[in-house]
Amino acid sequence: MKGMMMHRPLLVSEILKYGVDAHQKGEIVSVRTEGDIHRETYPEAYRRICQLAHGLRAQGVELGDRIATLAWNGYRHFELYYAISGIGAICHTINPRLSAEQLIYIVNHAEDRILFLDTTFVPIIAAVKDQLPADMTYVIMTDRAHMPADLPFDALCYEELLEGQPEEIDWPEFDENTACGLCYTSGTTGNPKGALYSHRSTVLHGMMMAVMQGSSFQEGQRVLPVVPLFHVNAWGLPYSALLSGLSFVMPGPALDGPSLFKLMDEENVFTAWGVPTVWMGLLAEIKAQGRKPSGFGDVVIGGSAAPRSMIEAFENMDVNVGHAWGMTEMSPVGTHGMMPWWSKDLPRETQIDMKAKQGRRCFGVDLKLVDEDGNRLPHDGAAIGELYVRGNTVVSGYFKNEEASAKALDAEGWFGTGDVASIEPDGFLTIQDRAKDLIKSGGEWISSIDLENAALSHPGIANCAAIGVAHPKWDERPILVAVAAGEDKPTLDEIRDHMETQFAKWQLPDDIVWVAELPLTATGKVSKLNLRKELDGYQHPELRETA
Amino acid sequence: MKGMMMHRPLLVSEILKYGVDAHQKGEIVSVRTEGDIHRETYPEAYRRICQLAHGLRAQGVELGDRIATLAWNGYRHFELYYAISGIGAICHTINPRLSAEQLIYIVNHAEDRILFLDTTFVPIIAAVKDQLPADMTYVIMTDRAHMPADLPFDALCYEELLEGQPEEIDWPEFDENTACGLCYTSGTTGNPKGALYSHRSTVLHGMMMAVMQGSSFQEGQRVLPVVPLFHVNAWGLPYSALLSGLSFVMPGPALDGPSLFKLMDEENVFTAWGVPTVWMGLLAEIKAQGRKPSGFGDVVIGGSAAPRSMIEAFENMDVNVGHAWGMTEMSPVGTHGMMPWWSKDLPRETQIDMKAKQGRRCFGVDLKLVDEDGNRLPHDGAAIGELYVRGNTVVSGYFKNEEASAKALDAEGWFGTGDVASIEPDGFLTIQDRAKDLIKSGGEWISSIDLENAALSHPGIANCAAIGVAHPKWDERPILVAVAAGEDKPTLDEIRDHMETQFAKWQLPDDIVWVAELPLTATGKVSKLNLRKELDGYQHPELRETA
Repeated sequence: MKGMMMHRPLLVSEILKYGVDAHQKGEIVSVRTEGDIHRETYPEAYRRICQLAHGLRAQGVELGDRIATLAWNGYRHFELYYAISGIGAICHTINPRLSAEQLIYIVNHAEDRILFLDTTFVPIIAAVKDQLPADMTYVIMTDRAHMPADLPFDALCYEELLEGQPEEIDWPEFDENTACGLCYTSGTTGNPKGALYSHRSTVLHGMMMAVMQGSSFQEGQRVLPVVPLFHVNAWGLPYSALLSGLSFVMPGPALDGPSLFKLMDEENVFTAWGVPTVWMGLLAEIKAQGRKPSGFGDVVIGGSAAPRSMIEAFENMDVNVGHAWGMTEMSPVGTHGMMPWWSKDLPRETQIDMKAKQGRRCFGVDLKLVDEDGNRLPHDGAAIGELYVRGNTVVSGYFKNEEASAKALDAEGWFGTGDVASIEPDGFLTIQDRAKDLIKSGGEWISSIDLENAALSHPGIANCAAIGVAHPKWDERPILVAVAAGEDKPTLDEIRDHMETQFAKWQLPDDIVWVAELPLTATGKVSKLNLRKELDGYQHPELRETA
Repeated sequence: MKGMMMHRPLLVSEILKYGVDAHQKGEIVSVRTEGDIHRETYPEAYRRICQLAHGLRAQGVELGDRIATLAWNGYRHFELYYAISGIGAICHTINPRLSAEQLIYIVNHAEDRILFLDTTFVPIIAAVKDQLPADMTYVIMTDRAHMPADLPFDALCYEELLEGQPEEIDWPEFDENTACGLCYTSGTTGNPKGALYSHRSTVLHGMMMAVMQGSSFQEGQRVLPVVPLFHVNAWGLPYSALLSGLSFVMPGPALDGPSLFKLMDEENVFTAWGVPTVWMGLLAEIKAQGRKPSGFGDVVIGGSAAPRSMIEAFENMDVNVGHAWGMTEMSPVGTHGMMPWWSKDLPRETQIDMKAKQGRRCFGVDLKLVDEDGNRLPHDGAAIGELYVRGNTVVSGYFKNEEASAKALDAEGWFGTGDVASIEPDGFLTIQDRAKDLIKSGGEWISSIDLENAALSHPGIANCAAIGVAHPKWDERPILVAVAAGEDKPTLDEIRDHMETQFAKWQLPDDIVWVAELPLTATGKVSKLNLRKELDGYQHPELRETA
């Protein structure tokens, strides 16, 4: 028997209408490529989004068309999110840190009709334009006065697209399973694969995040999304934070520590979201200034595992750390690091231990661990297996990619994350490693993440990666590739001594290779693929000695 | 183009599984009909819910069957909610305050198969049993030791239904539009009408409430649902609070001021939810004791308009008031009273004014005001019109009632609330009155709610109702029917003088009729229908004078 309730589609435009209606004093503050700071209230943004939607339609945009963006975090990018999805087109955000080859691949694969870009990225497009679709329309995200003088290709001006358009629109209604967004994985192996989000998945993800964030997500608080709008929807913040009525502080292109510190300080940012590499820069600036930015009380760390030392550094300055985990294929958030209420009574060290894990699942995201034969493993904190996920916010396949789609789900319909993990009885997830980054030594697994976290807590190491190198006897042995924190580099023995309390002897790295910097992926994670390429020809010390 | 995301049905069992998984230290504390206090953790409740689900199946319960409850707020009632809906049956909560005639009507209309009842309600069922379906199974919600000795009808024992059943179950999956709950309106006119909630509407309502409640709804806080589980799902608390990980303190049958005070004080209740009549009792006890219950910081008032004086009384003791509004037909919450962040800077009087309104719409609930011709009115705070609502949590018709279903929605598919309201530009809703309770005097409308609130702020009045009585010249004129607060009743002139600052002279009541108590509906609101019956033969003073 069916219930007798209205069926209203869950649409992205409903979040927009609600946010503006309920939170009229909400603001979007943006560092602009023009060099200044721009401010608009939610209602001002709404009127511009309506104008933009009309402008898109004037360009012939229809339901299902892919519209690409190549832009920093700023109000125009935010406006594009809602205008594009609102009229039923698909917002395809492109990561400017992709290689030219990948960029060409995804724009052609997505069959984008229009590409919106910040002035910053004009050279990137100029370099590859001949290999992009010939009928593409380009729009520079600025006003007429700031249009680059020597534009190497024809392009429209964003502000002119809006000019004279009506400030209200009847947002169309359509099936809630209609696609609204497209984001390609950074593609460490093979071509990037597209996650095609639906209105339903996006609205449910936004609600789920607003439920989970609780006290760190109160109406009127100010959120800094350092995590880019150009990748996995800035962890859903454009939706969840609008729903909750937070004000946005958009950092634009300035993501170094001093710039972030200044912006947070001046704009009274309460909660800041980003990957660990970004926070290393901010923490260095905080150390240099001897204080934290004014009003800073909460940080959400995801994208890759937050080192324990980073969590401690923030907690020591009364900044609550929420450690989250997810994937492009998960919209992207899967687990969140809000602490359970009873943890307040635990010893501080135990609390930090809990925060170093990846948190508990969000409502609507199911987790399962399986062994190599696909058998379910218990959530007992001890069993370690491959992590599979399921939920309305998880992909069922990849856009226009039958081969990858066929391999995405297991026989029960769960998505394989490629992560190896354990889950505590109280629900806390620990990502042990990417399955492909685990180091197999003498038939036993060593987590590269655990090694990195332990090494990073040594003051002489600024950043590092642990990888397995071939060894004739042990199959693989761990080594560290590290960036030194200062002039005096610690010795391998010093590092091993420092790590010894947390590891068995055979788990400790056999070598340390000093580098000036670590190669990063397009999403700001250490690229172990490139690291292995850079280390081409490297030999384990024992092999060298015997050579 | 469709997104490529998993489609998982939004099911009530998902809330249960999530709550237990994520909030294992959550508790359900209940005042029992057995006379003691019972405690269970979420995981303990979960195991019993699984046993109950097996027990229901052992009784032959299938998808779509209606299973009735007649019970106070307590853990067994809570268990029934999840066990019944979880296996795809429909939880039909019955209000024990309904008349025997209404009770007989709805049980037969719903075609209930099993009726679960607290020992308290055995006499109610004994009196009407011959008019209930002959093949009905009755289950007394207690253990064998507490089964009434002289039970006047055959009945099973709740605890025996669970005994020996497995403590885990594979919750079935089905379409999210499947019905999960049934609640009849209290039916002030005609037969009660059934709102048939779906899993989708219930899950979205639960998420929506958890998003809206923000800071008053933090994991680990303790919530007291005085609002009954036997009516409109206790405003959705069994779902939203489990999702957020609050602990429940269930008051059982003891709803008087001293009992509530004691329970809140001993159980450290932070947020308490109920109708204004309940809070009158609590406030009297707080006054008598000269302090508020320990830990009490938040109260949600709905069901009927909270008098301004009540809001002030709570706020004066640092209890945050959230004034909410909704209807059985809305699952039931439509607007919520969480204050916008910027209101903190407003003068206290202005803040109280805001709290005296019904709050802002919840995400997913659309509001429109229309005039008598069905034209839309602006949300400018001035225009007053009939309020229509739309959303996934709003009924599209009534269970097995084609006549009422045909009249439920307007041509645009919106549900007519029967309330007359205005909406401020900032989104705040003010319910002016029930359309049928508005008093029409000389072609102008007077809000009975406004008159009541003004009169209630006089210390000599404990409770009151304003109604319109027939008048040959003015059509209707307002009078007050009031319960005195003490021995010395104020005069009509004193009341009029007290109200004068807020009203034009012609809007003031022409008479005051003192009564010992006001008639209440089954949901605890003043029954103006019954009041008018009680006043049968009453004449306006001018008519008496000329008689």
